Amino acid sequence: MSPFRATAPITKSWDHFEFTVDDGVATLMFNRPEKLNALTFDVYADLRDLVTELPHRGDVKVLVITGQGRGFCSGGDVEEIIGELQKMETAELLEFTRMTGAVVKALRETPIPVIAAINGVAAGAGSVIALASDFRILAQSAKFAFLFTKVGLAGADMGSAYLLPRLVGLGRATELLMLGDKLESARAEAIGLATSVVEDSELASTAAALARRLADGPALAYSTTKVLLTRELDMDLGSSIELEAMTQALLMTAHDHKEFYAAWSAGRSPQWTGR
Amino acid sequence: MSPFRATAPITKSWDHFEFTVDDGVATLMFNRPEKLNALTFDVYADLRDLVTELPHRGDVKVLVITGQGRGFCSGGDVEEIIGELQKMETAELLEFTRMTGAVVKALRETPIPVIAAINGVAAGAGSVIALASDFRILAQSAKFAFLFTKVGLAGADMGSAYLLPRLVGLGRATELLMLGDKLESARAEAIGLATSVVEDSELASTAAALARRLADGPALAYSTTKVLLTRELDMDLGSSIELEAMTQALLMTAHDHKEFYAAWSAGRSPQWTGR
Amino acid sequence: MSPFRATAPITKSWDHFEFTVDDGVATLMFNRPEKLNALTFDVYADLRDLVTELPHRGDVKVLVITGQGRGFCSGGDVEEIIGELQKMETAELLEFTRMTGAVVKALRETPIPVIAAINGVAAGAGSVIALASDFRILAQSAKFAFLFTKVGLAGADMGSAYLLPRLVGLGRATELLMLGDKLESARAEAIGLATSVVEDSELASTAAALARRLADGPALAYSTTKVLLTRELDMDLGSSIELEAMTQALLMTAHDHKEFYAAWSAGRSPQWTGR
Repeated sequence: MSPFRATAPITKSWDHFEFTVDDGVATLMFNRPEKLNALTFDVYADLRDLVTELPHRGDVKVLVITGQGRGFCSGGDVEEIIGELQKMETAELLEFTRMTGAVVKALRETPIPVIAAINGVAAGAGSVIALASDFRILAQSAKFAFLFTKVGLAGADMGSAYLLPRLVGLGRATELLMLGDKLESARAEAIGLATSVVEDSELASTAAALARRLADGPALAYSTTKVLLTRELDMDLGSSIELEAMTQALLMTAHDHKEFYAAWSAGRSPQWTGR
Repeated sequence: MSPFRATAPITKSWDHFEFTVDDGVATLMFNRPEKLNALTFDVYADLRDLVTELPHRGDVKVLVITGQGRGFCSGGDVEEIIGELQKMETAELLEFTRMTGAVVKALRETPIPVIAAINGVAAGAGSVIALASDFRILAQSAKFAFLFTKVGLAGADMGSAYLLPRLVGLGRATELLMLGDKLESARAEAIGLATSVVEDSELASTAAALARRLADGPALAYSTTKVLLTRELDMDLGSSIELEAMTQALLMTAHDHKEFYAAWSAGRSPQWTGR
Repeated sequence: MSPFRATAPITKSWDHFEFTVDDGVATLMFNRPEKLNALTFDVYADLRDLVTELPHRGDVKVLVITGQGRGFCSGGDVEEIIGELQKMETAELLEFTRMTGAVVKALRETPIPVIAAINGVAAGAGSVIALASDFRILAQSAKFAFLFTKVGLAGADMGSAYLLPRLVGLGRATELLMLGDKLESARAEAIGLATSVVEDSELASTAAALARRLADGPALAYSTTKVLLTRELDMDLGSSIELEAMTQALLMTAHDHKEFYAAWSAGRSPQWTGR
């Protein structure tokens, strides 16, 4: 556990998705397969809180997000979310949209690398959760659909209009967010939205292998890389270079870098500890 | 017409290109085909004013820009613009370059989606007008040429050095803007500069179909998507997420989103009104 | 020489790499081929100072960086740099990382276009030097490896986490910087990291031809294009358009633009002078 915990306890179990931790690898599995893992208010709230809490646990070095059944996550449930929104007042609507944005903010700002293992359709909010992850491994049959305009809402949702142009360029992001059409896995890889595409049957093992690699590797090096990638999207050249100089000097004093040199000098493989 | 018009009248007709409006779709056609639609001072000024005025008309939901004849737009006319610039003083030169920049600023900032239907060469300022559009549909025979350095000027013109790296990445933008060489349509698509490439004979119908879709769809959803894509290029992650939360909460109170839910509940297609 | 030199002399020769100037084209060749041109503290310091000094010489219009032997630059020497870092205190480590960052800052901010002619592996700091160049011409056998995490350090080094997402998008940059795996030349071209890939035997001549073109062309147009590309990554749309309007008005008063018009009017080719 983090040495800097205050009064609030670590959550013992999460009610609105499956959550397991195995030797440094946390797995979050959406578990409403009969609804293609459509989100409810409760799932959103649990996502927001889990991702925020994760670095405080001390036993998690990487998070894998995936879905049970045929879908990854089909976005907000039409009945349980869109239906309910019809009855809400202004302040409640904003509280909802801020909660959904908080999920993405937490995913981008957590120092823990996040792998989306996308087993089927990632639509609406599901596509943005994938977008906010660090790695997106797609089953061949998986698809993206930033379908917000198809329900009469802005294609800009949960930070999608910030993130997508920074992954695939403004032109392709405009097409995807404005029209909301489906995107096949091969095309997602071609434009830089998918990290890789694998046979459906190999998705779980591919994601597990990457997660294992990240959990067993120099975790502080990985997490600082992620944090600086996130921050430097919003920084200028000179400040970014200074931040990297500071960060790298710090990491030169840490255990894993010394271990690399000791291992290299002794002609053996480094034993990473993430410190 | 916009409910917030002041004293200035809406322009009745435009002298320096063809301009028509048909059921929500505005079409601007450059009409100096014998010069590959080279721009004159007058065309620039009309472009600047038309794009600025467009949202005030109230009858336009999407703008299509295209060219008559073999070219889309070959950029500033060598005789009528470059020749005249030789005679101008500092303040006049700056007034000219600011006018050209104002065209791009207006195209990016208008809430109306813009489709460039690129029927032939898009060179110099013509390539930047295409770049500032939201969709770029290219005829197979069309080409880009950011040829500014070939006339001894900076490849950075009318915002090209801002926009192009955000579409195709800094490396490719450097090559295209510094060298100014021609870019074939297939290559433009491969690097994310073209939305799509179609047979020459199908350009007009493809652009018209997209325009019709945008005009008949949830126009407020489309226009807020465009505006946020434009603005969030210049915003940080946290502010972008907040802006999207505000925007989406607003759109949840608007007609089209309610119409989606009503239609979905009734098992019918939504009737979008753009409100 | 620049008319604005102060007391400090121009460096007569550089001890830690080969440096030659031939008719406007400067060539910097790493010359520790037996170590795949691994960097030492001295090479870093010379790089920083040379790139900073280059525009003051007055005889250089383009810089080519390449390596002797099988490698381009394999990054910091494990013995001579990483070994030495183990003995250093905090302030010295920071002085080192700031020096390495200063190399990239100088490469991005110099008005002189930089061509990396990448003849073999570009690893660690070598990959970031390539990344900070304006053109990256790769021999077919060349490879990139942003291998920082493999030595236990952050993948964010010398501005890599700022630059790489702006070339290849956030998703691919995350994969490359976090994992540090090798990247083949064909893949580098496909994702926009390589300007072009040529047969190994044609690398030198291809780079030389591009350098000659840049040196013989409108150098002020090229250098302002580079400078604005660098600066506008950190600027908003409106400010970028204003900066381009100012820059272009300035260049309209310069010799090369007038020469273009005179040549065009006379039906001859322009004689560029870079003024």
